[in-house]
Amino acid sequence: MHWSRWGDPAKAQPLDESARGMVEMFVGPLVDVPTVELEQVVLPPVGLTADQVAGLAAITEVATDAESRIRRTRGKSTPDLLKLRAGDAGDAPDAVVRPGSHDDVVAVLAYAVEQRIAVVPFGGGTSVVGGLAARRDGFAGVVALDLARMKRLIAVDPESQTATMEPGLLGPEAEALVGEHGFTIGHFPQSFEYASIGGFAVTRSSGQSSSGYGRFDSLVVGLRVATPIGDLTSGSAPANAAGPDLRELVMGSEGAFGVVTEVTVRVRPLPAEKVYETWRFPSFTQGAAAMRVLRQEGIAPTVLRLSDELETMVNLADPASIGAAGDGGCLMVAGFEGTAAAVELRRSLVTARLTELGGTDLGVDEAWATGRYNGPYLRDSLLDLGILVETLETATFWSNLTRLYDGVKSALAASLPNPIVLCHISHVYDTGCSLYFTVAARVAGDPIAQWRAAKAAASDAMIDAGATITHHHAIGTDHKPWLAREIGPVGVEILRAVKERVDPTGILNPGILIP
Amino acid sequence: MHWSRWGDPAKAQPLDESARGMVEMFVGPLVDVPTVELEQVVLPPVGLTADQVAGLAAITEVATDAESRIRRTRGKSTPDLLKLRAGDAGDAPDAVVRPGSHDDVVAVLAYAVEQRIAVVPFGGGTSVVGGLAARRDGFAGVVALDLARMKRLIAVDPESQTATMEPGLLGPEAEALVGEHGFTIGHFPQSFEYASIGGFAVTRSSGQSSSGYGRFDSLVVGLRVATPIGDLTSGSAPANAAGPDLRELVMGSEGAFGVVTEVTVRVRPLPAEKVYETWRFPSFTQGAAAMRVLRQEGIAPTVLRLSDELETMVNLADPASIGAAGDGGCLMVAGFEGTAAAVELRRSLVTARLTELGGTDLGVDEAWATGRYNGPYLRDSLLDLGILVETLETATFWSNLTRLYDGVKSALAASLPNPIVLCHISHVYDTGCSLYFTVAARVAGDPIAQWRAAKAAASDAMIDAGATITHHHAIGTDHKPWLAREIGPVGVEILRAVKERVDPTGILNPGILIP
Repeated sequence: MHWSRWGDPAKAQPLDESARGMVEMFVGPLVDVPTVELEQVVLPPVGLTADQVAGLAAITEVATDAESRIRRTRGKSTPDLLKLRAGDAGDAPDAVVRPGSHDDVVAVLAYAVEQRIAVVPFGGGTSVVGGLAARRDGFAGVVALDLARMKRLIAVDPESQTATMEPGLLGPEAEALVGEHGFTIGHFPQSFEYASIGGFAVTRSSGQSSSGYGRFDSLVVGLRVATPIGDLTSGSAPANAAGPDLRELVMGSEGAFGVVTEVTVRVRPLPAEKVYETWRFPSFTQGAAAMRVLRQEGIAPTVLRLSDELETMVNLADPASIGAAGDGGCLMVAGFEGTAAAVELRRSLVTARLTELGGTDLGVDEAWATGRYNGPYLRDSLLDLGILVETLETATFWSNLTRLYDGVKSALAASLPNPIVLCHISHVYDTGCSLYFTVAARVAGDPIAQWRAAKAAASDAMIDAGATITHHHAIGTDHKPWLAREIGPVGVEILRAVKERVDPTGILNPGILIP
Repeated sequence: MHWSRWGDPAKAQPLDESARGMVEMFVGPLVDVPTVELEQVVLPPVGLTADQVAGLAAITEVATDAESRIRRTRGKSTPDLLKLRAGDAGDAPDAVVRPGSHDDVVAVLAYAVEQRIAVVPFGGGTSVVGGLAARRDGFAGVVALDLARMKRLIAVDPESQTATMEPGLLGPEAEALVGEHGFTIGHFPQSFEYASIGGFAVTRSSGQSSSGYGRFDSLVVGLRVATPIGDLTSGSAPANAAGPDLRELVMGSEGAFGVVTEVTVRVRPLPAEKVYETWRFPSFTQGAAAMRVLRQEGIAPTVLRLSDELETMVNLADPASIGAAGDGGCLMVAGFEGTAAAVELRRSLVTARLTELGGTDLGVDEAWATGRYNGPYLRDSLLDLGILVETLETATFWSNLTRLYDGVKSALAASLPNPIVLCHISHVYDTGCSLYFTVAARVAGDPIAQWRAAKAAASDAMIDAGATITHHHAIGTDHKPWLAREIGPVGVEILRAVKERVDPTGILNPGILIP
């Protein structure tokens, strides 16, 4: 991962002339925005004492060099990128600690409690909600607890179709390991190539194939968590009535309650066949209604996505084809994965139903599947040209969809100069769906302040519409004010009570999640 | 509901001569066991002061007459029945309080906090785990908070397919109300006729059609909860990443964290067709493997049950046919509900797969569906004859099924005199399933002590096998020691932390759930 951009520099996607022309048409003239080199980044001195660094090093691997620290500074939100591009590493951890095992994690936590050192669990570093920028005040220092050495596939149970993994495995690494046993996890978020198994669990990640495989939280059957007061192990059965489901308390906790050291997930046989089709619907409303019907009738495909009119036109996910789709309407992707027989059966049911519901079958098209992880590269290319780009996501019930869509779009339009606002539905449920917005606007003044204002307006619109502040990006620091509104004061008190009990000195990711 | 037996006295199911003969063959000679009349029940005096009763009556309806109190004494476990049959109402509430609204509940809780009165939320009164026998010490008295007046269907959202209901609706009442809108909840546990919507939520109930419709906790999309520190409202989207899922903390909380006053659930269109088939498999192992395959391949029917060899032979659910099934093997019920087209398609897939997997199609058979709620009546008939009967249930992953099955059977065989132990699988998941045991043995000495010892042995066997102490009966007081072993000391601390925060005076169902 590039230290201040998304992903692999070799995969960067600079805009070609026609794409630049179209962007300029929307937002006005482009400018080249310089970024600093790694060596120019301003890094605070290591705040920990030499004794503390030695104390950590006596437990496991520790690094305090500049590059290690810069690479664990914040996550990958647009404000995070803007800060690093400008050379600001003010939130850098004092040290990077790399445990090799659950026992290492336990020992690090005990030492951190003793020394009052804040601990930020670090998986793939892809947070887009400020989940890695812990509060420093009141602590001797901050360490990034980098889980990158904890990459074992601990067990596969082929009969129960589960796999137990360490948290540091990145998406492709985990897929490769369970793939050797003939299985897939089926979790493919846009961050797939760089995000970790532990991160998927503690942020309630949801992948692009969630219609078929389910959200990551629905795949998790067991967790092992190291907390400052001891281990929590949950998942004694696929489902039970043994009180509140504590797995559901750890998921979404973003490291504030403990460090997940083992994750057991449902796996499925590797699909023999994968077919992705595109469909066109006359309008977003009609396409969304068709998705609802597929889901409520129990025949949704593995992948089910719908772009709104503008996203269909702009097709931002693939710079080579920006502006190429000229037939209007809204593009839907329907992907089918499974045995040949299952794919054939489901395709025939879906084809019949979507046709009845007003869709036009555009045939098999692998373009979406090929470009599915490329969106973030384009953001870097646009930031290079003075275009602020960020994403926002939420979810609601079907009957509230239009109100939410209109509300967020209006809020963004009112708070940014002539913005492009694109939207798609990428996760469907029986009772509702997600909405994922991509926003682009010309930088005017301080881009971070500019974005904060727009983000606040959009977040207010989500809560005002009775929707959630986040469908799959988690809370971090950025969403905290709206979490408090979403779950109310009693909900906040419950989170605080759990936090205070399992982390009485408050060393775990301080300032994250809990209002 | 009869005050000391299950259900409607008109539906009692005394054993006929052939059934008696068969039971005697298994467990030895039967004896007629007398039970007391309602008037003979020994009831403690009302512990609340006249001022306190008046204080409650100033808020809402209150009753302190003997019958009202006896009818809210404990639940419907076999020990509960044995105590009432012997005239022991020592756990009776001092008063029965009947709120008519959320605001009434809030006011009752505030008064109870002020006066230190313990509050036991009471829905259908069907707990089989001691969930209604609150601890009295430290309190001025105990009231049953009977939710039977809170029976409104608050809202139906036909587009999102959700319904919002008050907690006091019993299963058939709720089905009738959503049925007027063309929907079903699809939740049909054995207790369906007498258990309540609120109870389903706070105990994580699972119904006989859970393969198709899902467990009740998976149907719940929103909850409103009155706690002593304020209201908690959750369910802002079908799914979200806004921190831990607080719905999952309320579900399974058995009234210890608050009183659920509104429940929003997923509903589905009323099925146009219902077809129930029976199949025979050569062995329990082979039948279970077939269920696993159906589920993992995504083609499980709406109802999927499998009786082990002895349960197949005895067929306890239908006294008229006890001992009638003479062809050996294990009986499976496969039920299909939905549109005619969906039923036909699923049936054809299931028929082909079950045939391949060694099953014999016995054709359409409505006997199971007709008798599905009758099991508890037979328990009363057997208790009348000196036969101790009770049920136990658990769940585990597929690869652990045989170990769990053998472990529980061995524990029961070793701790009861010549017991009959029957078992079935009634809830299947991708990664595992439930096991539901029915145990019968001749009473020898004190039947309650006799059962407690057997229950403890079976519960130890469940935890020793790494399974859950309860798949769908909840914790109450009976399962608390094993809950502590299942979730460990950190899990217990989390429950205590939440309890202490939301219920600082501890008035809510004291002694229930939390070890």
